Amino acid sequence: MREDQLIAKISAKTGSRTRSKDALLAIGDDTARWVPKPGYEVLLTSDWFLEGTHFLRDKHAADSVGWKCLARAASDIAAMGGTPVCFLMSLALPTSLAGRWLDRFLAGLRRAAQRFGCPLAGGDTTRRNEVLISLTVVGQIAAGRSVLRSGARPGDVVFVSGTLGEAELGLSLVRGNAKATRTTAAMQKHLYPEPRLALGKWLAEKRLVSAMMDLSDGLSTDLPRLAAASSAGAWIDAGALPAVQIPASRASQKLDALDLALHGGDDYELLFAVPKQNVPKIPASFQGLPLSAIGEIRRGHSLVLRGKNGRDTVLPNKGWDPFRNKR
Amino acid sequence: MREDQLIAKISAKTGSRTRSKDALLAIGDDTARWVPKPGYEVLLTSDWFLEGTHFLRDKHAADSVGWKCLARAASDIAAMGGTPVCFLMSLALPTSLAGRWLDRFLAGLRRAAQRFGCPLAGGDTTRRNEVLISLTVVGQIAAGRSVLRSGARPGDVVFVSGTLGEAELGLSLVRGNAKATRTTAAMQKHLYPEPRLALGKWLAEKRLVSAMMDLSDGLSTDLPRLAAASSAGAWIDAGALPAVQIPASRASQKLDALDLALHGGDDYELLFAVPKQNVPKIPASFQGLPLSAIGEIRRGHSLVLRGKNGRDTVLPNKGWDPFRNKR
Repeated sequence: MREDQLIAKISAKTGSRTRSKDALLAIGDDTARWVPKPGYEVLLTSDWFLEGTHFLRDKHAADSVGWKCLARAASDIAAMGGTPVCFLMSLALPTSLAGRWLDRFLAGLRRAAQRFGCPLAGGDTTRRNEVLISLTVVGQIAAGRSVLRSGARPGDVVFVSGTLGEAELGLSLVRGNAKATRTTAAMQKHLYPEPRLALGKWLAEKRLVSAMMDLSDGLSTDLPRLAAASSAGAWIDAGALPAVQIPASRASQKLDALDLALHGGDDYELLFAVPKQNVPKIPASFQGLPLSAIGEIRRGHSLVLRGKNGRDTVLPNKGWDPFRNKR
Repeated sequence: MREDQLIAKISAKTGSRTRSKDALLAIGDDTARWVPKPGYEVLLTSDWFLEGTHFLRDKHAADSVGWKCLARAASDIAAMGGTPVCFLMSLALPTSLAGRWLDRFLAGLRRAAQRFGCPLAGGDTTRRNEVLISLTVVGQIAAGRSVLRSGARPGDVVFVSGTLGEAELGLSLVRGNAKATRTTAAMQKHLYPEPRLALGKWLAEKRLVSAMMDLSDGLSTDLPRLAAASSAGAWIDAGALPAVQIPASRASQKLDALDLALHGGDDYELLFAVPKQNVPKIPASFQGLPLSAIGEIRRGHSLVLRGKNGRDTVLPNKGWDPFRNKR
């Protein structure tokens, strides 16, 4: 196997266009090339996806690794309200994985690329004793329409999409079930997350939200980021959180639905702030995805959780932090 | 150390703009944002720079690691004739390196960013027992002006900039001299390569070249790529190569100047094909950098080397390939 052969395989299996005289977004030159739509901003995001840190090769099927590495990076484009355009992939892997494992990885990657409208446009490859993946996703959005983290104002209502803690529950099921034959919804969400691209785009286009981000590290870590960027505090109501339901078969394992909803990572749902006058325009669900009001932006810098007992306490920051947690 | 603190440190030490309401290219949101000049194409390139594969922590100063990871990615922008705009960095490192090592790494990175006009605009960080770096550099160029690998035609003259094999010689000096106090020109080129941005831009703007790429893996590996992309062969003359001079102190170590020039990697010089009628317009040097005619593009697919004895032989492909070589 030579590097050029590996690149040819990646190009073929992901359905990427290879070099042709003038094609933009073709693989095989020193850089990818692309022209955004006139009047559009370019959005750029990079994400790690590393064996041992972000996935375990013996627990996560190669197909899921391929899907998820692109899904989580595309989620950052969704969080701005943008549309993915293409991605670049830096891939390092052992020579022994360049056969079947790589085929399956590329199959998952290709399905994600087709689903998100986001073809592979370039990258870099090298040999390594562990699988290392770094993705850069490029997106676009009409100039001035991107939704930042910094626009929330006191009084805005805080919303989240979907169910919180589901991916973390899925991780615990995947870890416990090496030989699971049945994939539950929670496992599916952990293995094959869906970036909320249509929702993010709709919220941005309709100018309904003042601030937005995606939930990758858990609500208790990400909400403080949105609040700090907006120079504000926030208050959330435990009783309003769309928390995952713990299956009866797992009820004895000290899994707590509220803990999962507050601190569980990898959900890739959208967290957004809605000015009061726009709240009636937010539907209860968008294309089947529930949207829940969970609290509000407040003056100051405090992050407060109203417990199910009705008492307010400081929201502990206990989501995923690679420099604190170890998976 | 928390991830947010690390990101704040990286932002501060690289002189990046942090989140502000509407600034483009500011760090701290889900994606970076940027608007290219009207009528311009976006150029995108990703490069690995991994401890143990691309650098050795005990041989390469952190400052050089910071400079070089950006220089080599920016070199791909030079190879298209473009101008760098910004970069995204995915960085993984041990917590123990988040102090002095990181400071020095960021100092080198900052100098390179300032030199190339290419600020940090985003990225991702995580913890890892080795230093892993993946960079994406974004560039721009007037639409239709980028120079691909695929445009060379039989009869075009093949040129290279600078001196070949110098960085590989520098690597051998760095490896042999853990305690070197004097940095030679070859070591300097290995540690602090200069992407040929001004030359690439000039050649593209003046429309003097039919094909171009940068030399990262060595002439004997990269020239076949340019030839194959152009559906052509190539002939080069060993006597015309601007080969590095082996210092007398190293003459006994089986270092061969021609081997270094043909197969040495990491030079980041430009390799370009010039149609016959443009050859008189190529100066002997550009801003002090020598430009050398080394051969020509030919019909067919053969890659031929004329030896110093005047005999033509097949050019062996012996440059850097991560799936073949081990450093």
